[in-house]
Amino acid sequence: MKNTHQPSLDFLFNPNSITLAGITTAEGGHWTRTFLEGLIASEFDRPMYLVNPKGGEIKGHKVYTSVTDIPGSIDYVIGLVNAQRAAKLVEECAEKGARVVHFCTAGFSETGEEERIRLESELVEVAHRKGVRIIGPNCMGIYSPKSRMSFTPTFPNESGPVGVISQSGGNSIYIVRQAALRGVRFSKVISYGNACDIDESDLLEYLADDADTEVLALYIEGIKDGRRFRRALEQATKKKPVIMLKGGNTEGGARAVAGHTAALAGSRAAWDALCKQLGIISVSSIEEMVDVLVTLLFLPLPKGRNAVLFGAGGGASVLITDEFENRGLRVPALPQEIVAQIREFTPVAGNILRNPVDYSQAIMNPEGVRKTLEIILMWEGTHFLVVFVRTGQFVHAGPLAARTSSLAAMFFANQRSFPKPVAVVLELSIEPHEADAIATAIRGCVVSRLPVYYSFAAAANAINLILTHAENRPDHRLRRRLGL
Amino acid sequence: MKNTHQPSLDFLFNPNSITLAGITTAEGGHWTRTFLEGLIASEFDRPMYLVNPKGGEIKGHKVYTSVTDIPGSIDYVIGLVNAQRAAKLVEECAEKGARVVHFCTAGFSETGEEERIRLESELVEVAHRKGVRIIGPNCMGIYSPKSRMSFTPTFPNESGPVGVISQSGGNSIYIVRQAALRGVRFSKVISYGNACDIDESDLLEYLADDADTEVLALYIEGIKDGRRFRRALEQATKKKPVIMLKGGNTEGGARAVAGHTAALAGSRAAWDALCKQLGIISVSSIEEMVDVLVTLLFLPLPKGRNAVLFGAGGGASVLITDEFENRGLRVPALPQEIVAQIREFTPVAGNILRNPVDYSQAIMNPEGVRKTLEIILMWEGTHFLVVFVRTGQFVHAGPLAARTSSLAAMFFANQRSFPKPVAVVLELSIEPHEADAIATAIRGCVVSRLPVYYSFAAAANAINLILTHAENRPDHRLRRRLGL
Repeated sequence: MKNTHQPSLDFLFNPNSITLAGITTAEGGHWTRTFLEGLIASEFDRPMYLVNPKGGEIKGHKVYTSVTDIPGSIDYVIGLVNAQRAAKLVEECAEKGARVVHFCTAGFSETGEEERIRLESELVEVAHRKGVRIIGPNCMGIYSPKSRMSFTPTFPNESGPVGVISQSGGNSIYIVRQAALRGVRFSKVISYGNACDIDESDLLEYLADDADTEVLALYIEGIKDGRRFRRALEQATKKKPVIMLKGGNTEGGARAVAGHTAALAGSRAAWDALCKQLGIISVSSIEEMVDVLVTLLFLPLPKGRNAVLFGAGGGASVLITDEFENRGLRVPALPQEIVAQIREFTPVAGNILRNPVDYSQAIMNPEGVRKTLEIILMWEGTHFLVVFVRTGQFVHAGPLAARTSSLAAMFFANQRSFPKPVAVVLELSIEPHEADAIATAIRGCVVSRLPVYYSFAAAANAINLILTHAENRPDHRLRRRLGL
Repeated sequence: MKNTHQPSLDFLFNPNSITLAGITTAEGGHWTRTFLEGLIASEFDRPMYLVNPKGGEIKGHKVYTSVTDIPGSIDYVIGLVNAQRAAKLVEECAEKGARVVHFCTAGFSETGEEERIRLESELVEVAHRKGVRIIGPNCMGIYSPKSRMSFTPTFPNESGPVGVISQSGGNSIYIVRQAALRGVRFSKVISYGNACDIDESDLLEYLADDADTEVLALYIEGIKDGRRFRRALEQATKKKPVIMLKGGNTEGGARAVAGHTAALAGSRAAWDALCKQLGIISVSSIEEMVDVLVTLLFLPLPKGRNAVLFGAGGGASVLITDEFENRGLRVPALPQEIVAQIREFTPVAGNILRNPVDYSQAIMNPEGVRKTLEIILMWEGTHFLVVFVRTGQFVHAGPLAARTSSLAAMFFANQRSFPKPVAVVLELSIEPHEADAIATAIRGCVVSRLPVYYSFAAAANAINLILTHAENRPDHRLRRRLGL
């Protein structure tokens, strides 16, 4: 019997205090420390209690030798004890008034071992008996910047419109990190692991109604109750865009899922059909999920599929055009009168004005770039503009950092200053001196509210997914809420 | 009438001298300077002559006011004059005994303008009449480290087995830069632009027989003589693996091709059929081309499709398994006796030994990792091993640089020391302090002759392409020549 009648999970995200039970007192980078570091970095402003039988002190915080020693009542507990101790911890926490225990601890049903499956059952039994909710086990728990909760010290402290439900802790970290670099911010992120109590349906129902969450991103390995989850998805997709990354679509992947969170992966065909029917944006990698989030948040919805592609490099302009048209986006030829306007101030040699616009020779002329983009954006034949920058092409022209900055100054006015949506493709480089320049350019895009992509294919794919979604789900009002 | 009866293009790659005609004498980063910088950086060791009507000196090199002022004869010329001056330059160069003029100059047939199409015809007419070969116009020319020729200062000076024929200069730069970072080196790279004289068939025939070239990578926008090119491809594919990136597969892409190199792109279906029939490795992006090059050069050919995937992170292990199995690679379960061997020294909680192997909890134990990999590599059920590292998962555990280095020390023994092929996936990060650590780890892989990929999908895709190619073309002896 699950506590599914609890009216709201609000209390998970607004704890009166947090207790870290089982944090190591030894020095250094033990995994149990990341939760303390996360709470400190996110400036958690209510009581924090640390517990370890050895007692002592960590970073000026007293360490209680047991949960029962904590003065007064407790509320939200992060369980870092081993699997054998878990049920007992829940019992102790219940005595102290705790409402929820999140177990990061692994070593339960995901091991496939009989004794450890029993430990998980025992944990659930105690929790239900005592009226304590469980997140996990085998997960990272909650990141909620508004309530200053975080499970690593590297996440942004500002809130944003994206809610994430991820069965995997590592994947949730990767989603937040990659998306945060490109300006995406989050309302609530929940890594929920084995889902022995609170499961994907509970969380989906909650976030579908959460006023702080405008977009939902799910990483799901398996589901506990298929019919309930389907109903929850139906309701959620009526309210907000839902992006789904389904793990375990293959035989080996399903085995990985069993080993990871003890879930049953389900058939791929069934998932695909469900996504299609409900207008869920289905993605197959975290990179793709992040590309879609960036597009949803920063690209005002184009009024159609006609793009102008503008950049430097003939070969690049060919390849990006193929990527866009292969995904059903259109790159229509510029009409003669538009070309003529641009030609007035643009040399013929080395600047090809057809769409794609290869502005190779004049790319270092800020005034020419500015005027050309102005003319292009006023052309009624285009719905949006994509500017592509390939770092390798500027190495001959002096220090890349300076060039990238001057490009940034040329290209990157604020999204709102353009009459049509503008996106940027900034191909990555790992050459150290270039990585810095690119990081700077990406930060510039973020400040200007421009969606930035790392490859031609990524941009084309994400923009197509968003347009397809808008065609399928015209009922979503996200963009109005986001001011896009 | 083209000079197609010239017996060999060897002379292109072994010039007695190089003349830079039209290099700017003004300071700074003008594009004409990149060729001088390239030749200096690659330590070109034969005479270099600079020409500009203004005379003077650049970096200690005398600038002649005209080609005719150069003492004695000249050989290889890089033409940097404008399009209107090009035919005249060829005439002057012919008088001085030049055998080839490479024109970087743009502004010919690719503009689509009548007058400029005429300029290109005139250029060709003069060249044929005078017996001078032309590379280009509208291209970067030749990079040939063995003969110390380069068109940018950032390319490696060491030679390698990859020959590249690229209609686009920018794409050839991008291919070399991206591949070089991951250890790939090149025999000869030719960016040949509008191909008004020397064309893709000339170059393909030459490189197919070139003893220094073991692998061929082509970026083709259009072809001059379809039947001849097909014959050349047939011959080339009998001798070496051929990787093909075809630009202009869409309507917009074909228009971009016309504007870029004035070529006719041809139908996509015809190209696909040709690639399939001849066992050409067809790719759709430069990223994919580089992944294939890295695999061909550094991954000893696996004897089958069974992979063990080893890393840290449950969610990551699910996603990488899906990527591999979705591409026809297999991730078979570890048998109980193998699991039992690893369990002897590996804790149950947080280490899932099924394949994928999620070694999350023990990943920082070098001895455990070493012993586990040893056992896995001896298991007869696997043909190759893929180690995956997701940087984001180690942030909580201390400075990433140190962690990455310790991982590097654990994982990266020399490829030859492993009984089966080993590949590495190192997901990129652009966070500046992490970019450095990753660049270091990538350099470590290169030294160890390990193929390194930046995403799960990229690794799975490239390894599948290589295995498929080996199944289709068992006649290729590349790997024996490379010692793989």
